[in-house]
Amino acid sequence: MKALVYHGPGKKSWEEVPDARIEESGDVVVKVDTTTICGTDLHILHGDVAAVTDGRILGHEAVGTVVEIGDAVSGFSVGDRVLVPAITKCGRCSYCQMGMPSHCRTLGGIGWIFGHLIDGTQAELVRVPFADTSLYALPDSVSNEQAIFLADSLPTGYEVGVLAGRVRPGHTVAVVGAGAVGLGAVLTTSLWGAARTIAVDSNKFRLERALEFGATDTVEAGPGAIDEILAMTDGLGVDVAIEAVGYPETLRTAAALVRPGGTIANIGVHGVPVELPMHEMWIRNVTLTMGLVDTVSIPTLLTMVASGRIPAEKMGTHTFGLDDILEAYDVFAHAADHLALKVVINAG
Amino acid sequence: MKALVYHGPGKKSWEEVPDARIEESGDVVVKVDTTTICGTDLHILHGDVAAVTDGRILGHEAVGTVVEIGDAVSGFSVGDRVLVPAITKCGRCSYCQMGMPSHCRTLGGIGWIFGHLIDGTQAELVRVPFADTSLYALPDSVSNEQAIFLADSLPTGYEVGVLAGRVRPGHTVAVVGAGAVGLGAVLTTSLWGAARTIAVDSNKFRLERALEFGATDTVEAGPGAIDEILAMTDGLGVDVAIEAVGYPETLRTAAALVRPGGTIANIGVHGVPVELPMHEMWIRNVTLTMGLVDTVSIPTLLTMVASGRIPAEKMGTHTFGLDDILEAYDVFAHAADHLALKVVINAG
Amino acid sequence: MKALVYHGPGKKSWEEVPDARIEESGDVVVKVDTTTICGTDLHILHGDVAAVTDGRILGHEAVGTVVEIGDAVSGFSVGDRVLVPAITKCGRCSYCQMGMPSHCRTLGGIGWIFGHLIDGTQAELVRVPFADTSLYALPDSVSNEQAIFLADSLPTGYEVGVLAGRVRPGHTVAVVGAGAVGLGAVLTTSLWGAARTIAVDSNKFRLERALEFGATDTVEAGPGAIDEILAMTDGLGVDVAIEAVGYPETLRTAAALVRPGGTIANIGVHGVPVELPMHEMWIRNVTLTMGLVDTVSIPTLLTMVASGRIPAEKMGTHTFGLDDILEAYDVFAHAADHLALKVVINAG
Amino acid sequence: MKALVYHGPGKKSWEEVPDARIEESGDVVVKVDTTTICGTDLHILHGDVAAVTDGRILGHEAVGTVVEIGDAVSGFSVGDRVLVPAITKCGRCSYCQMGMPSHCRTLGGIGWIFGHLIDGTQAELVRVPFADTSLYALPDSVSNEQAIFLADSLPTGYEVGVLAGRVRPGHTVAVVGAGAVGLGAVLTTSLWGAARTIAVDSNKFRLERALEFGATDTVEAGPGAIDEILAMTDGLGVDVAIEAVGYPETLRTAAALVRPGGTIANIGVHGVPVELPMHEMWIRNVTLTMGLVDTVSIPTLLTMVASGRIPAEKMGTHTFGLDDILEAYDVFAHAADHLALKVVINAG
Repeated sequence: MKALVYHGPGKKSWEEVPDARIEESGDVVVKVDTTTICGTDLHILHGDVAAVTDGRILGHEAVGTVVEIGDAVSGFSVGDRVLVPAITKCGRCSYCQMGMPSHCRTLGGIGWIFGHLIDGTQAELVRVPFADTSLYALPDSVSNEQAIFLADSLPTGYEVGVLAGRVRPGHTVAVVGAGAVGLGAVLTTSLWGAARTIAVDSNKFRLERALEFGATDTVEAGPGAIDEILAMTDGLGVDVAIEAVGYPETLRTAAALVRPGGTIANIGVHGVPVELPMHEMWIRNVTLTMGLVDTVSIPTLLTMVASGRIPAEKMGTHTFGLDDILEAYDVFAHAADHLALKVVINAG
Repeated sequence: MKALVYHGPGKKSWEEVPDARIEESGDVVVKVDTTTICGTDLHILHGDVAAVTDGRILGHEAVGTVVEIGDAVSGFSVGDRVLVPAITKCGRCSYCQMGMPSHCRTLGGIGWIFGHLIDGTQAELVRVPFADTSLYALPDSVSNEQAIFLADSLPTGYEVGVLAGRVRPGHTVAVVGAGAVGLGAVLTTSLWGAARTIAVDSNKFRLERALEFGATDTVEAGPGAIDEILAMTDGLGVDVAIEAVGYPETLRTAAALVRPGGTIANIGVHGVPVELPMHEMWIRNVTLTMGLVDTVSIPTLLTMVASGRIPAEKMGTHTFGLDDILEAYDVFAHAADHLALKVVINAG
Repeated sequence: MKALVYHGPGKKSWEEVPDARIEESGDVVVKVDTTTICGTDLHILHGDVAAVTDGRILGHEAVGTVVEIGDAVSGFSVGDRVLVPAITKCGRCSYCQMGMPSHCRTLGGIGWIFGHLIDGTQAELVRVPFADTSLYALPDSVSNEQAIFLADSLPTGYEVGVLAGRVRPGHTVAVVGAGAVGLGAVLTTSLWGAARTIAVDSNKFRLERALEFGATDTVEAGPGAIDEILAMTDGLGVDVAIEAVGYPETLRTAAALVRPGGTIANIGVHGVPVELPMHEMWIRNVTLTMGLVDTVSIPTLLTMVASGRIPAEKMGTHTFGLDDILEAYDVFAHAADHLALKVVINAG
Repeated sequence: MKALVYHGPGKKSWEEVPDARIEESGDVVVKVDTTTICGTDLHILHGDVAAVTDGRILGHEAVGTVVEIGDAVSGFSVGDRVLVPAITKCGRCSYCQMGMPSHCRTLGGIGWIFGHLIDGTQAELVRVPFADTSLYALPDSVSNEQAIFLADSLPTGYEVGVLAGRVRPGHTVAVVGAGAVGLGAVLTTSLWGAARTIAVDSNKFRLERALEFGATDTVEAGPGAIDEILAMTDGLGVDVAIEAVGYPETLRTAAALVRPGGTIANIGVHGVPVELPMHEMWIRNVTLTMGLVDTVSIPTLLTMVASGRIPAEKMGTHTFGLDDILEAYDVFAHAADHLALKVVINAG
């Protein structure tokens, strides 16, 4: 089969490799019909994720068709159309049983294994371990172009932003960073009745998209952004500030935006320590949350996409064939230049 | 001043009475600009509420203007436009402090006192005790015709139906009974992300209104209704069944509609005991909730009405002048004949 | 192997049957070291549970040793000491994934299958399907005599009584019915900080046991019990009333004991419909919960037993050898005469 | 009357001042029977709290007797024995109504006003504004020596540590810092069923006290403390890490102790920014909480103290007369030398 293989920092190739196959009795092999690229894939290519080694097939998001099942698999059959989410779960460890498979003990303490600890989804075929507890059957009413964003971006914005941030009816929410994941948060604040959602970014294209995704207001990132938002919110700030960038400054901005009693929900992947003004924050009764997505919200999100209440397909701005995946990487790596959010990569 | 006075079962008159005035230092007198009639007012007139005695001014919902304040009132001033909600709260007893003023101990164990234990709002003036903790200031962006339904109907549908029923994103909700309060629930299921809201009623006019209020489906009440709804919900039933009628059969219908693990939220005011099939229900892990509204959700609902997300004004189908309140009662008492939901009664 | 086999209403025998063996790749065979008898087993023998047919091995509680594992089992090995709980879970259906395996879809809509839909634990060996997601490894610090009550009685009292009833620090809790399951609730109210736990029963032996299990007060069941408890609780009643009997009168007693805003947690298995005074209850903002145990609290309860905070062993009042199981049934069926709560049945 | 008056950094005197008196109709004057000293009082004396100016009477904790009431006060009478908590609440602003009076808007955005924005409790008399919503009546079963610690230390440890940290049955909790507030957390982890409570401090006296207060383990602060605690907790860490010191290192220690999915509850008052290892923390699904006490848990804590489940009196190690308050300050300021936790100061 053909697959996108990582060969060390800066090096990847679309090459012929042995077919993915059943290795354990709980495995399934899925033919990849649609995949996409995540910001994390770019981090890997920059050499930032030490656990990813030469020869690893990249990618952790797919929609596909089951082509082979292991002896112990009972919930899926050959021919089933499925979502392969970013998180794999054993279903039996203490973390899986409490609904936090992001820290699945069986898989080495982390539920993200595709394109990381095992071969990934940017290939013609992918082996899915623990298939019964990890895969999701897709209803006909949800298209591949919608479903692919439920593998990672949308649940990340929703779980790590909206759910962890405890958005509630009547709330005002600020989303600092309107990239794909931040927009995933913007798209889903209405599920918990947000009255007002303010998108903050330095990129005009993204702010325009945010309005289409349901933001009620946009604010250009910069020195005056905090004051502008405080002025919009009785001077006290927002109920929930979602950070979706991953820099010290953006986290401090989120912290400065939140009102007493509010929540700062950090989605961003940080590369360095962050100095927080705890001497000012300790008295404000705020909560700071953070974490890797669990993807346990997929059934809810599938229902909402199927009901037409979440237009997930808007996340995809560019479409490529699987054979053109290198070009897709190029567009995604220079998203601002191409007015791109997420790319949709379809097998022929 | 003129007021609508109860004179025993079946008797009421729009008559001249002494002006409402400050009696305690925490009181405010409000000039009533808009009021409405509640189903409970009809129950009182039928003689069903023993605590209401001859001479009592009826009504427990108003929008108005502060015209006089007691010495201890600090939160409101003469001229303020306010909402007078159905529930008064002392703010200091254990029930008020835990957010359940429906059972305020200071007021005799119940927060509903207007038109019940003290004179009510269907008058030119009304005395409001515990004004600082009970009144809500109204923003200009919310009209009288919207705000009046936040005094009782809408918070009742929302708190006793949607909140108590724990509606959550992706849920399917059935609302049994599409009168004003049932429609209040229909209007607000989206605040908690319901994917599907099914209205059940025997009245076609009400089912049409339900669709305008946000229901996704309607089902005609009758022998086949339960099977029809189970067929719409994978055979297991809805996540939340809201009862908004108050009869044994309708509560049993709601109980039959709910899936294992779901919630039956009873809003209906019951006049007789109800036999429940506990021999079938005990194993189903269901929860049955019930109660009087607390009106503590008014700030949230005001925000959502002001933001345009809840069209509260749709509850009002007929408008009258305050002097025509007897005619308004006549229309409301025969709501089905007049295709009426709630009446809006405006002072001149 | 020897097993206790049901042969229709009123008939059971301790007889030789074929050995339990692996049937599916996710199965485990457990040698039963300790088992017990549940009130449900008596109901089955009375012919009350139609799904249990002639030839079924009874019992749904065991502590034992793994003697054989299926090919797909990865979490347990031969020789492991395990708890076989009353509820089996597939771990992959929607109900299992939301932590409610009592309604596991894969197992036919119910997680209780041992001694019901498949052969049970009152035998020398038992086949355990879905072993990886259903069994619990036992630490050395928890004895068989403690662990056996974590299979059903204790989690039932805790989950369906204390958890569903939402006991919280400072609460006063009434437990109506101080049998094994009611005492399981009494034993665990302290996990959520109850200030006062009142046991209600007509049996003096049980009330004495209740005091040993942590009750602060006891009240003899009877005409004056409600008034007595209201007098102990400022006239308003208890925060949580747990019903652990299963009769209409006892559920109505629990309903009469709960204060406005409180919870009635029904544990009792009801055989007939129950008439509830909804005309009095609707206004009281109370919640009524009910359900089958999920046994998902076992990890928590194991931790608390191991830490010495829950003396689970107190549930066992009589001990028998497995070959004497018929005598154990006789004692348990006439528990009051023998001052018995639960029997411990140990294999030789 | 006599009172302890602040006269700028480092200066205080026990001097004659005008009697406290009713200023607003909602005020009460309380004769102080028992007071104590808080670490915050020492911070004020160091000049760290700019809002406290020359002439201010210090102190924000008292048990006393009502000696005069304003015209609008209805909940308290002359002669009532009351607790004056650290937090005053108007009861009507949005923060008070949502149970977060620490940020009461009416009082200038902060509920802590005694000995800060108005005269405090280290005096013979104290004026209490918003008395109806702020004071708590004391039952006879709770002594002054118990009640005084419910004014601040105990609710702070409980609310900002145990409640914010979401301690749950079966949890392992680490409390970093076993001073009065940390010990308040230790005393109350059992209210939520903690299985294990580990106290961490560099002071042996405090660690011994911690064991008396209910800690199951103690660990000496220092370079090896983190590894020692990880070794006690399967290598993953504790469920809840409570920080009760207020230094960057101690907060980082708490962060290093918490397992994936756990909570770091910061109680400490920080004087400088804190650098947190967000590059390691972002992926761990942890929550960091912080805040000023609300004292809304006082009714719960009073019930638990009255029931004998919380021995609050253990917080007081030294007793003084009110006239000897300067000596009490001296002992408290050098607590380690005197083996002191909190001082009890009784009026004659």
